[in-house]
Amino acid sequence: MNNDFTFFIPTKILFGPGKVRELASMTMPGKKALVVISAGKSMRANGYLDTVLDGLQQAGAETVVFDKILPNPVSEHVAEGAQLARSEGCDFVVGLGGGSSIDSAKSIAVMAVNPGEYWDYINGGTGGGKPVENGALPVVAIPTTAGTGTEADPWTVITNTKTQEKVGFGLIPETFPVFSIVDPELMATVPPRLTAFQGMDAFFHAAEGYIATCSQPASDAFALESMRLINEYLPRAVKDGSDMEARSALAWASTQSGLVESTSSCTSEHSMEHALSAFHPDLPHGAGLILLSTAYFSFMAEKKPERFPAMARAMGVNVDALPANQQATAFVPALKRLIENIGLADMTLEEYGIDKSEAPALADNAMTAMGFLFTLDPYTLSRDEVITIFENSFSK
Amino acid sequence: MNNDFTFFIPTKILFGPGKVRELASMTMPGKKALVVISAGKSMRANGYLDTVLDGLQQAGAETVVFDKILPNPVSEHVAEGAQLARSEGCDFVVGLGGGSSIDSAKSIAVMAVNPGEYWDYINGGTGGGKPVENGALPVVAIPTTAGTGTEADPWTVITNTKTQEKVGFGLIPETFPVFSIVDPELMATVPPRLTAFQGMDAFFHAAEGYIATCSQPASDAFALESMRLINEYLPRAVKDGSDMEARSALAWASTQSGLVESTSSCTSEHSMEHALSAFHPDLPHGAGLILLSTAYFSFMAEKKPERFPAMARAMGVNVDALPANQQATAFVPALKRLIENIGLADMTLEEYGIDKSEAPALADNAMTAMGFLFTLDPYTLSRDEVITIFENSFSK
Ligand SMILES: [Fe+2]
Ligand SMILES: [Fe+2]
Repeated sequence: MNNDFTFFIPTKILFGPGKVRELASMTMPGKKALVVISAGKSMRANGYLDTVLDGLQQAGAETVVFDKILPNPVSEHVAEGAQLARSEGCDFVVGLGGGSSIDSAKSIAVMAVNPGEYWDYINGGTGGGKPVENGALPVVAIPTTAGTGTEADPWTVITNTKTQEKVGFGLIPETFPVFSIVDPELMATVPPRLTAFQGMDAFFHAAEGYIATCSQPASDAFALESMRLINEYLPRAVKDGSDMEARSALAWASTQSGLVESTSSCTSEHSMEHALSAFHPDLPHGAGLILLSTAYFSFMAEKKPERFPAMARAMGVNVDALPANQQATAFVPALKRLIENIGLADMTLEEYGIDKSEAPALADNAMTAMGFLFTLDPYTLSRDEVITIFENSFSK
Repeated sequence: MNNDFTFFIPTKILFGPGKVRELASMTMPGKKALVVISAGKSMRANGYLDTVLDGLQQAGAETVVFDKILPNPVSEHVAEGAQLARSEGCDFVVGLGGGSSIDSAKSIAVMAVNPGEYWDYINGGTGGGKPVENGALPVVAIPTTAGTGTEADPWTVITNTKTQEKVGFGLIPETFPVFSIVDPELMATVPPRLTAFQGMDAFFHAAEGYIATCSQPASDAFALESMRLINEYLPRAVKDGSDMEARSALAWASTQSGLVESTSSCTSEHSMEHALSAFHPDLPHGAGLILLSTAYFSFMAEKKPERFPAMARAMGVNVDALPANQQATAFVPALKRLIENIGLADMTLEEYGIDKSEAPALADNAMTAMGFLFTLDPYTLSRDEVITIFENSFSK
């Protein structure tokens, strides 16, 4: 047991099918909300935006909608949203949608009350690393996907299109949502392939958080339980999106993986994926992680096997019946079976237009823009080893 | 999975051997602290009070000490502490010691800023049930025992000596500690028998929280892990109090059981114990729980077996090798083994001067003063059944 740690998760999480209707009776953290949603149609078409605007208004808050967020949210829209919050006099920010909208809400909440450019405050890569003087507006999160877990952590990931960097950021406690409403009914319309990508994003938050050197007992418990739930329920939700038992289990697994992010951390697999999707914005984050994962975890399981048997056990492998030297290596085959069970075994980096020759440039981007996560890996990778993991992720 | 719940634990928990020394670099929630400790000698004799006063002063806070708290803290001392906080101009309260000191700190924090008597605000029994108008002063918790978990929940238990009631109370979020420092080194001097009582208190917070109808996925994970840790490490800490690995595991188990209190609840076993120790103030809380536990859990396992196999598994029983009808009943024998392993198998209610003929009066006190917890039992007990559980707890 890692016995030196801080446990701190100030966000109030309201969980349950139909829970979004309780928004109307919540105490609001301000008088006027900037509601941040994606540039796509789904928040309006599914009625989620109306439900949330109604709830906010019944709770006594005025509302302004900012609807420009892209799947990989960019710093230009953070600036634009912050400007809108200021000009409209918004005093809190509601993120409604996938991780991109909630992350943008957090970043907008920071820039609404701080001067200069967002990238001035970023640590890592070309970020200015400037201290944030004025905190952030309060944030409320209402996720409509089960993947990022951002409703339960202080982190936000934004892309700088000029420099091709995709970097995480957060303020403790200011960018923890004041409260989050996790309603699995809002997730029923996510199509199968996206459900699979997002579910695996949550899976890797758990798996990385479990092997990270900064893990703690609570993150361990959260992580193993998330992996167990995703292994059991993700194939069901991919097969039948209306399976509310599966959607609920996955919604909690994803939120719980956010709790892992708050009590442990992602590792370099996420740095490498951010490099991939910064260079190739059409690559969904979850797809990038899946494509890196068997190379990454095989490498780590060989170098530092200690934590892998428990992960295989959480995936349903009868680890204790295996000889000692096969207990750690049982994890990656279990992971491959899960990827197969969600119909993604045939996916390749090549089909997203990514070429093996990019491996060195990807390694350099990952190690610069998100270098910190490499220090949390159970085994410290060299640049050559990072290149090898990228190369091993290609299908041939 | 219970899929309708709120997860909210705003307390920042700093955990680790030697962690109390970080008090000096924490941001204080006020300028002047009322430091609440017990009437006993240990906080001074062990140097813990000096360490904490030093830390607070280095952090820029003035300090006033209130050192009258009894093992079963009474409402008179809440009033006296609150009066001292007001007359000294204290703007936050630090609880240092066992659960009694930290619980008193919470109750004093409420009464320092609210008019009237403490019992006016209590729900249950003869409590006035008045709404609390002014919240509470911020609370900091520094436990020196591993048992109550009060450092990680908003609850406080105070005895009304006039009415012989021992009732729980709390304000969400005000009586959650702002931060808690859980330092297993402060627990090394607890003698074996107290270590055993306190460890079992934490065990029953977990076990009750696991079977409670208001459990949620996070409380389940916390509870099973606490039971596993206590089953493994409590016998070691009882045998050798200086075993810092065992003390650390138990400190976390206890704090984690406090997280269970924040995400689930105790059940009627605690109501029954509060009746016992309200009538017999010399009975330690943990001892009362141990003496009630086999009768209580045997009864519940028979009426509602569903959650018992997982608890037996957490205790190390190879449940899956048992026939289905023996999986739930495997828990109580495992519990008895644990009680044996900590040297308490021969303890009786009789040796604390308690007589079987008190059972009806105890049942009435439990069901009145702490009646609410009976509604969270997996099976709803009748008065006759409560009397039976009390009677079955006697040795003959
Ligand atoms: Fe991710
Ligand atoms: Fe207790």
